[in-house]
Amino acid sequence: MPGEIISSSKNPNIQLTRSLLEQSKARHKHNAFVAEGARLLEDGLASAVPLRFVFYKTSLTPRAKTLLEQIKPDQAVYEVEDRLFESLSDTESSQGILGVFDIPAPSQPAKPGFVVILDQLRDPGNLGAILRSAEAAGVQAICLPPGNTDAWAPKVVRSGMGSHFRLPLLRWPWEAISAYVEGLTVYHADMDGRESPWQADLRGRIALLIGGEAEGISPEGRSLATHSVRIPMVGKTESLNAAISASVLMFEVLRQRSQKV
Amino acid sequence: MPGEIISSSKNPNIQLTRSLLEQSKARHKHNAFVAEGARLLEDGLASAVPLRFVFYKTSLTPRAKTLLEQIKPDQAVYEVEDRLFESLSDTESSQGILGVFDIPAPSQPAKPGFVVILDQLRDPGNLGAILRSAEAAGVQAICLPPGNTDAWAPKVVRSGMGSHFRLPLLRWPWEAISAYVEGLTVYHADMDGRESPWQADLRGRIALLIGGEAEGISPEGRSLATHSVRIPMVGKTESLNAAISASVLMFEVLRQRSQKV
Repeated sequence: MPGEIISSSKNPNIQLTRSLLEQSKARHKHNAFVAEGARLLEDGLASAVPLRFVFYKTSLTPRAKTLLEQIKPDQAVYEVEDRLFESLSDTESSQGILGVFDIPAPSQPAKPGFVVILDQLRDPGNLGAILRSAEAAGVQAICLPPGNTDAWAPKVVRSGMGSHFRLPLLRWPWEAISAYVEGLTVYHADMDGRESPWQADLRGRIALLIGGEAEGISPEGRSLATHSVRIPMVGKTESLNAAISASVLMFEVLRQRSQKV
Repeated sequence: MPGEIISSSKNPNIQLTRSLLEQSKARHKHNAFVAEGARLLEDGLASAVPLRFVFYKTSLTPRAKTLLEQIKPDQAVYEVEDRLFESLSDTESSQGILGVFDIPAPSQPAKPGFVVILDQLRDPGNLGAILRSAEAAGVQAICLPPGNTDAWAPKVVRSGMGSHFRLPLLRWPWEAISAYVEGLTVYHADMDGRESPWQADLRGRIALLIGGEAEGISPEGRSLATHSVRIPMVGKTESLNAAISASVLMFEVLRQRSQKV
């Protein structure tokens, strides 16, 4: 729609975008989420995830401008008045471009070898950092039972650094997760865990179960765990940040799997 | 000072606390910082770091109340009107108690075996998470050359989970850091690094040099590095969060050192 500059906050796509940025309920009702900034939009365009539309503001950054030129002409791309765009954007240092995408349909492997189950994660930054690390460590699917903060919230998407477009995120009830990880050894990462991850053999088909910052794991999570691991610590630290301990464990799995037997 | 309830924002200790919460310059001019919440205050009281005074608000949480009873009678403890206390506190869910402590004088080992140098870390949450992990992984000192976000800011102290009271933080110029790590192998954690940390022998006397989120390491940092390591990654992730990659490396050092030769 060249030439058309959106200036009204009543524009339906503006209202949709605002609700997707602000409400988990709206994201899942519309099955859509917002990717803010040139880099995330690039990741989205490089994936097979359907793009609904792009908003850009008049005073774009050079990077966003270059990106805009690469978007196919048949895509819905709308210019938005600066003031209106800025009222939408969640980030202070917005690059002036965002894309609204479908929440991807998960394409999880049928017989996974490395799964992460998150249980009662509440901090969006932690959740996003775990997704980013998980992709890098070769995790094949992330299970998100009820009780986690919404993985499609803007802050999680930003911290995820594009992993939302590439990693199967399974927002499933416990019963479905339980069926999916059947046959896998489920390691609960726990400060009272029995084994050190360095001693445990993590080369088989496994799931890592990561509990939340405040409450740890739920009864449902507990009943799923078959083993527990504890990252050895020295000093007086009582615990590690949830994203950190998840990442140390995930990279220990990758390390063990990359060693010659 | 039983019976005295502070209600004026002009009270000198209130003004000091506010400036310590808000300004790095004030923290280093007064050589003091604020530990908010019962848990951090407990960590501070358990350390040898001098306490200047405690503020608590009238409507304390039970945990903070119990803590208050344990504080020695000769300590300066002041009750503050709820409204005034809340105007000070940086956290939304304040437990209604805070302590102002001296910034500890570093007591670094003369011949360290495991040091971390942070270079241009800008995110307070990342810096705090690194300190928390570093203590748990057995790091003996953290070098903080110019260009890092202030380690004594409230958000860093909160994320540090008490490590500020126990880990020597060396806020030194590059020249002093360079002299301190002489004789150590300095590994720069780098996405273009040569070695995998899993192949590198990290059991000797080493320093890990961690670059910032946006700009990586400075020229001064670069000239100090003798080796570079890269955490192997699969998938399309370009990089890891700075606190995550620092922690994965620090725990790999601990893993190698805990193995029998």
